[in-house]
Amino acid sequence: MTRECLLHESAEIDATAQRMADAARQAILPFFRQPDLLTDNKLAGGYDPVTEADRAAETAMRAILAESRPDDAILGEEFGRAEGTSGLTWVLDPIDGTRAFVSGTPTWGVLIAVSDNSGPFYGLIDQPYIGERFVGHGAQAWMQGPLGQRALSTRPTTRLDQATLLTTFPEVGSAEEGAAFHAVAQQVKLTRYGMDCYGYALLAAGQVDLVIEAGLQAYDIQAPIALIQAAGGVVTDWDGAPAHEGGRALAAANPDIHAAALTVLRDSLA
Amino acid sequence: MTRECLLHESAEIDATAQRMADAARQAILPFFRQPDLLTDNKLAGGYDPVTEADRAAETAMRAILAESRPDDAILGEEFGRAEGTSGLTWVLDPIDGTRAFVSGTPTWGVLIAVSDNSGPFYGLIDQPYIGERFVGHGAQAWMQGPLGQRALSTRPTTRLDQATLLTTFPEVGSAEEGAAFHAVAQQVKLTRYGMDCYGYALLAAGQVDLVIEAGLQAYDIQAPIALIQAAGGVVTDWDGAPAHEGGRALAAANPDIHAAALTVLRDSLA
Repeated sequence: MTRECLLHESAEIDATAQRMADAARQAILPFFRQPDLLTDNKLAGGYDPVTEADRAAETAMRAILAESRPDDAILGEEFGRAEGTSGLTWVLDPIDGTRAFVSGTPTWGVLIAVSDNSGPFYGLIDQPYIGERFVGHGAQAWMQGPLGQRALSTRPTTRLDQATLLTTFPEVGSAEEGAAFHAVAQQVKLTRYGMDCYGYALLAAGQVDLVIEAGLQAYDIQAPIALIQAAGGVVTDWDGAPAHEGGRALAAANPDIHAAALTVLRDSLA
Repeated sequence: MTRECLLHESAEIDATAQRMADAARQAILPFFRQPDLLTDNKLAGGYDPVTEADRAAETAMRAILAESRPDDAILGEEFGRAEGTSGLTWVLDPIDGTRAFVSGTPTWGVLIAVSDNSGPFYGLIDQPYIGERFVGHGAQAWMQGPLGQRALSTRPTTRLDQATLLTTFPEVGSAEEGAAFHAVAQQVKLTRYGMDCYGYALLAAGQVDLVIEAGLQAYDIQAPIALIQAAGGVVTDWDGAPAHEGGRALAAANPDIHAAALTVLRDSLA
């Protein structure tokens, strides 16, 4: 299927994604900030709580896809890969930021992306508690939230010393990756932590200039990529190559600030 | 005026504070996430943006006090101290977390406290964008937000290795203070950054166990103190003494986890 055909399908894809995000909200919110939240450790030795909410939300989203888009493939954080025949893959992270979720912070989100062979072309980030939804596909990006609906576009900041940088944890991956992150952090105006996937939404919304992360999975980054690109930004790995398979991500408000940050990351890793 | 008399006044104080918080929301929200946000630097060499929103909100809150509580004193972040005759002081921070505000993150808040000679006995934290309000006075604490109204109570966690710790920036004050903070961080289960005053609200809401900060002003901490105490928590400085004049704050979900964190802070500073 060509990208032109995909654009014709875009209204149907958007409608499906919106219904999935609505279903995920309904599935997740009863669990948020409950004292009896169930968690368990997926990774022995690591801290990666998985909640009942996570599973309930992905189940609800997959049920909608089974009915509306049975020919598409699925890659989901909780239940893995399901093959398809259409050439399209729905990439789902029902709760990105599970540590945010169990801490009660409203910075976690539901991530929904649709990709073809060349990467994600539709991205949705939903924050159910705030009631905010950020959507981007093609050259259109918008949000719906407490202050109504508005179009999204990224900032024109070109200089690192005028930029705001976000990431989730100050450690940012390995020691080498952390050092590269902090090389950028030393040059920017303001660095803030703790935003999880919400940081990418803020970048698309023109509130910050850079988000830099490492150790990502494909389902962590595909929705942010499509959203940010639709709002005018640039997302690559730390070599300037596509980031949609996961790993290291550099999300930037525009090509200039992307190039400036990329140079610092590369120099640090060299 | 005795504390007993103050409790009789509490309904009137609460009604006034609620109207002030409503007025602050109205004053601030038109400025939030606007691309033309005005900021300037209050501290030469530091990064402390002050927005028009900050000033508009404090002006609106002071106008309500002038009409409803003319005998009370005021201490406000933007417009300083106004003397009173009642023995009560309203302590106001119209936007706590101005760096959060200019980054678009919903972790800033409006802080309103009422104190007498012995410290704050009423505390309100409002997050206008989410539409959340956390209130504590006496032995009552509750919140109103997207999921409705509920009573607040802090967690029973007693061990550091089961605790979640929040602060805003990993640096946490001076080098010595930062080292003491990280001594605690090394012992807890999870440390997260970036929550500004919202972290204290999450502690009152039973979502996290500890918030540790330094370099605070009185108007940064008085509302959190009254809120958290009303929800069952303990807030002191890093010596176990009252924290309501500002400086270093250790906010804890209960006396046991407070004692455990205090020991680590004291040992680090010794």
